[in-house]
Amino acid sequence: MPLYDQIIEDILNDIQHHKLKTGDMLPTEMEISQRYHVSRPTVRTAMIKLVNQGYLTRIKGKGTFVTEPKITQASTQFIESYNQEMKKKGLTPRTVVLECSVKTAPEFICSKLHLSENSQVIKLRRLRYVLPSDEEKPVLLTTVYIPYQLAPNLIHYDFETFSLYEVLEKNHILISHVRRELEVKLLHGQTAQLLKAKEGQPAHFISSIGCDSNGQIIEYSESFYPANRNRFIIEISR
Amino acid sequence: MPLYDQIIEDILNDIQHHKLKTGDMLPTEMEISQRYHVSRPTVRTAMIKLVNQGYLTRIKGKGTFVTEPKITQASTQFIESYNQEMKKKGLTPRTVVLECSVKTAPEFICSKLHLSENSQVIKLRRLRYVLPSDEEKPVLLTTVYIPYQLAPNLIHYDFETFSLYEVLEKNHILISHVRRELEVKLLHGQTAQLLKAKEGQPAHFISSIGCDSNGQIIEYSESFYPANRNRFIIEISR
Repeated sequence: MPLYDQIIEDILNDIQHHKLKTGDMLPTEMEISQRYHVSRPTVRTAMIKLVNQGYLTRIKGKGTFVTEPKITQASTQFIESYNQEMKKKGLTPRTVVLECSVKTAPEFICSKLHLSENSQVIKLRRLRYVLPSDEEKPVLLTTVYIPYQLAPNLIHYDFETFSLYEVLEKNHILISHVRRELEVKLLHGQTAQLLKAKEGQPAHFISSIGCDSNGQIIEYSESFYPANRNRFIIEISR
Repeated sequence: MPLYDQIIEDILNDIQHHKLKTGDMLPTEMEISQRYHVSRPTVRTAMIKLVNQGYLTRIKGKGTFVTEPKITQASTQFIESYNQEMKKKGLTPRTVVLECSVKTAPEFICSKLHLSENSQVIKLRRLRYVLPSDEEKPVLLTTVYIPYQLAPNLIHYDFETFSLYEVLEKNHILISHVRRELEVKLLHGQTAQLLKAKEGQPAHFISSIGCDSNGQIIEYSESFYPANRNRFIIEISR
């Protein structure tokens, strides 16, 4: 095991066991090199690796600090449920349903779903968590609208246990094409409170349209991913 | 031509000719319906279409306002140069080179490019614009690092005329795989100034690694896209 791997392992261990908390400053390179009896470049290698992995942040002239690691969202690559995605990463997803109801859709939603005015929709609003996590801060808040006519029995499902895509498939609806639009929005009011974020904190805002293989619009959703807890990876080949 | 299309055309025309500027409030639906002798739902249809296209924003209880339209970045789908991408959209790209030099790479860059310490890299820093645009505000600021050994003659090219990918191809280097990481950062100091953005304004921050078909790392780049001027579209099928 290279010397710097030992340092990395120890720091990660301290983070995992809350000996080092988000915002804590690390000892200087000098101090660490003395403690481990290794050269400063070795310490630096360890630090850079942890910075690259998102665990630490170096601030010039100030020091190195523990960062809240961001969840890497793969939802840019695949159409899969949040639950599948998190389980693949070895993380335990948890969902809290805030609302699951039938509503008269506002104009804006009718227009997104290509519905005539005052159509009925199912509105499903969920907070999503990942366990284990330091604090009980949600990773995202998502609100999805589905034409009521498409699957009237949807509201009887328990969306804390089942994912929406699972339930849709049980109802013979398969989302086969998704178009996501990524913007940045600042969190305010209820949205900020629900996400346990500070007023005005930035978030990735994703609005998404999902269609079946016939091009029929099945869902329109809006999701807020607090920027300090999430990042997105996009891989492209040619 | 449906009635609402005439309203849309007139509003877009006013925006294009600066009779309506970013932040201006539109007349009420009532006023517009009287002016055109059409029903209020017709006016509302026009407004919703313009809101969906990003030209207008409705604020509850306040009114409808002209928004700075965002450039839709397709760089999430294809590996192509900024120039190709903008031309496809019918937009005219323009580039200003801020720096093109050979440097000893900082640790962080060496680690990203898998280079040994103190290696030489080419640093290319560019501001990118799209014409026509209201004001001369750049769309993005991008800094790319390329191992100097890979293409020492790169610094002799004019990157205001040629795109990096074009020049690399002339040097028989083809980027065939790209991994992009999307985060949100707040703009500060020189970065904010260069982008003519306000201090603390949010931006999409994309760090990107490009490899050739052998997996050799060719480039590492960091780009800031001010959030009020850019959005990203991701389309996924299964």
